[in-house]
Amino acid sequence: MPALRIGIVGAGSAVFSLRIVSDLIKAGAFSGSEVVLMDIDDERLKSVKTLAERLVSELGVNMKFKETKNLDETIKGSDFVINTALVGGHAYLEKVRRIGEKHGYYRGIEAQEFNMVSDYYTMTNFNQLDYFVHIARKVVELSPNAWLLQAANPVFEGTTLITRMVPEVNVVGFCHGYHGVDHIAETLGLEKEKIEWQVAGFNHAIWLNKFLYDGKDGYPLIEKWRDEHSSEWKPRTPFDDYVSPMAFEMLRIYGMMPIGDTVRNSSWRYHRDLETKKKWYGEPWGGADSELGWKWYQESLQKIVELEKLIAKLVQETPPLVKVFTKDGLKKIVGEGAPEEIVEGIAQIIDPDRMSGEQHVPFMMAITGVKPERLVINIPNNGTIKEIPDDVVVEIPAIVDKEGIHPEKIDPPLTPMVIRAYLYPRMTRMELAVRAYMERNIDYIKEILYRDPRTKSDEQVESVLGEILALPENERMRKHYGI
Amino acid sequence: MPALRIGIVGAGSAVFSLRIVSDLIKAGAFSGSEVVLMDIDDERLKSVKTLAERLVSELGVNMKFKETKNLDETIKGSDFVINTALVGGHAYLEKVRRIGEKHGYYRGIEAQEFNMVSDYYTMTNFNQLDYFVHIARKVVELSPNAWLLQAANPVFEGTTLITRMVPEVNVVGFCHGYHGVDHIAETLGLEKEKIEWQVAGFNHAIWLNKFLYDGKDGYPLIEKWRDEHSSEWKPRTPFDDYVSPMAFEMLRIYGMMPIGDTVRNSSWRYHRDLETKKKWYGEPWGGADSELGWKWYQESLQKIVELEKLIAKLVQETPPLVKVFTKDGLKKIVGEGAPEEIVEGIAQIIDPDRMSGEQHVPFMMAITGVKPERLVINIPNNGTIKEIPDDVVVEIPAIVDKEGIHPEKIDPPLTPMVIRAYLYPRMTRMELAVRAYMERNIDYIKEILYRDPRTKSDEQVESVLGEILALPENERMRKHYGI
Repeated sequence: MPALRIGIVGAGSAVFSLRIVSDLIKAGAFSGSEVVLMDIDDERLKSVKTLAERLVSELGVNMKFKETKNLDETIKGSDFVINTALVGGHAYLEKVRRIGEKHGYYRGIEAQEFNMVSDYYTMTNFNQLDYFVHIARKVVELSPNAWLLQAANPVFEGTTLITRMVPEVNVVGFCHGYHGVDHIAETLGLEKEKIEWQVAGFNHAIWLNKFLYDGKDGYPLIEKWRDEHSSEWKPRTPFDDYVSPMAFEMLRIYGMMPIGDTVRNSSWRYHRDLETKKKWYGEPWGGADSELGWKWYQESLQKIVELEKLIAKLVQETPPLVKVFTKDGLKKIVGEGAPEEIVEGIAQIIDPDRMSGEQHVPFMMAITGVKPERLVINIPNNGTIKEIPDDVVVEIPAIVDKEGIHPEKIDPPLTPMVIRAYLYPRMTRMELAVRAYMERNIDYIKEILYRDPRTKSDEQVESVLGEILALPENERMRKHYGI
Repeated sequence: MPALRIGIVGAGSAVFSLRIVSDLIKAGAFSGSEVVLMDIDDERLKSVKTLAERLVSELGVNMKFKETKNLDETIKGSDFVINTALVGGHAYLEKVRRIGEKHGYYRGIEAQEFNMVSDYYTMTNFNQLDYFVHIARKVVELSPNAWLLQAANPVFEGTTLITRMVPEVNVVGFCHGYHGVDHIAETLGLEKEKIEWQVAGFNHAIWLNKFLYDGKDGYPLIEKWRDEHSSEWKPRTPFDDYVSPMAFEMLRIYGMMPIGDTVRNSSWRYHRDLETKKKWYGEPWGGADSELGWKWYQESLQKIVELEKLIAKLVQETPPLVKVFTKDGLKKIVGEGAPEEIVEGIAQIIDPDRMSGEQHVPFMMAITGVKPERLVINIPNNGTIKEIPDDVVVEIPAIVDKEGIHPEKIDPPLTPMVIRAYLYPRMTRMELAVRAYMERNIDYIKEILYRDPRTKSDEQVESVLGEILALPENERMRKHYGI
């Protein structure tokens, strides 16, 4: 039963941090561990610490917490470093999106074919990529044996960049998008235990290569549901696209079901404008990445922050967390309008029978030898997916145990259409973004834009990039690229 | 000294056919051979046969010719079948281009990023791809040990399609684009014998991965010429782009020199309109694939046809070929305005010291054991270029001898930028076009158009494809795709 030291970079998200802490407690294996909470936001950090301490004291668990704004302190002596920080925050991303729209790029220049996820910036959040590399180097310097768990986006570009620039670091990228398989199974009314599945691809670009139900091919069940029920389908939230027309359209073209955020990452044909988005991702939002869907999401984020503040205040006053963190308790605080997902996510924290679904703690349990786990993780390909270069990070299922990470054989393989008509163009954009950073060559970023169907002239590229580079936030970026 | 039977499909091009015949004669190894000339154009076929017979009789060589319109007769009993036919001819290609332009596709829908070559139709010349497969099947049926030399475009899509659909056939794709290396060397004033080079990639997408001069890195010589002379550069013909601003721009971005037609195959950034093309490919034409450059080429083709008729007529009347086929003789016939390349190409036929530069006869010499040759050929990758799937046809240098084809090790490897930012997107379009044919799924062709920056709506794709499919020439295509 190892006592660990775990550093969380970007711990100011109370929900995420408490979910990790709660998973650690439920794992029942890490008594005596210390969690170092790091964030640049004092207030949020303090309330997370208060809540975390309250949680462990109420549950009678031996676990310590430390708050810090210092990265070295977070990393030094840690066994695991989780990076979940978004440098610049959503405010910066929205600023960049607005500049893009001003120059004729609907939904901003980062909205790209096969990467429409609205906070997955691969080109212009230089500070984010730079921080990834900085953390990785710090881990090598201060805790060379530690594992770096890369949870912050862009996981595909970020983990690939880290493995290329800091090859000595033990890094694994995490995303919970593969839970999309469960959503599909739930929709179809299948029993989870009878499903055997695999997914493979890149982060936000994974495909259900294997789907057996009760030992038999489960795809006919998906197709049956599509044929019988999809006409009545309506999304419950902008993110509810698992069985949207878009998902089935991708199945039709590529021959496999897209899983999780992959559904969002189709091509411009399906994202031209709000009307088109609505057609493929459902009414009223047109998916998470339309102007409506993204507004919904940003308001949800805002609600979470407010909720966290409320909870922290409430908890300091009187009732135990086990009273506050129930669905009814939460609804009393935020009113009935609170998104179900958020309420669920918080209520799960004090439910002794449910892990969060995040893979960070299961990974810790597995790699420290407490219990082997099957996880879906992001690591360099090294032959796992055929026809993908070795030094490209892929998202694949693996058995993790104290000997290390053992990728599963991807069987059946991804279809040629998935590999050659979907993953390759996605990979090309990753290469250009990652190489731009590595070679300090902004022309590779321009190259992405030159190939963008919204670009009409060289001047458009120069002016949109020029305005983004001129932002005060991008001083380091300008320096990096010699501008 | 083997006597061969060689079938030429599309032999109505007198220049091509006579070059092959003349190479056969100069090879000095194939006495007693028979060449079967096949074409659908009676008149041209007759004049080619007349010229060919005249050529061998004047040179005192033992070689027989047969003319036919029958494919079986061309293939049966042949050791080599050369396919150089363009089904539908240029007239069909221009018709399709005009329809594309009518629907908002400048230079037609076949003009695609990384494939701007104006007669390299991968989607809409169904009859051409279909004929490729038909010929390959006929070879397997009638002459299973014969070699099929695939000279007709699109060589990349065509040879890949043949190897996938008719895996039993011995097929090799040919293109003379690699001679671009010589053009560069000539421009730089280098001695040919001191150059050591390799090219690798796909047809019309090959890159100078190795360039040594006198045993030392020759790239600095290229860069020196660029720095000192490129400002004075002017193209002599629309095709003269070897050291154009475009070629050096590609060197800058991808880290290697593009060779031959590769220079034409840049992205839309360099092809947006005539002005842009002129900037990168030079005045006055803006490259071979602009409206001006292509007009020049079509007029040249017309001149060749007229020239061939004139020559055939002249020869029947009086003088020996050795008198007609001199530069002066030819200029007397066509006047001073004749393109130098054409005059050169014909004059070479009777020059005893110069092979045509086409690789077909050298391949025959090599594979029949007369003399091993180093050739640049198109065959399935099977590991030759790293990170390219095995079943994709690549253009690479190989030693050919009677044991077979031995690809050279590509060393140094292509740059990651060439592979991942250039070859991959080119390959994706090949996959979609080839799979459309193989799976009888027109949606893959639509997918290419959906991703085309000129496409503004689904309706545009439907209407442009609808109009092309409705052409009387495309009856078989409609049937194939169930339309």
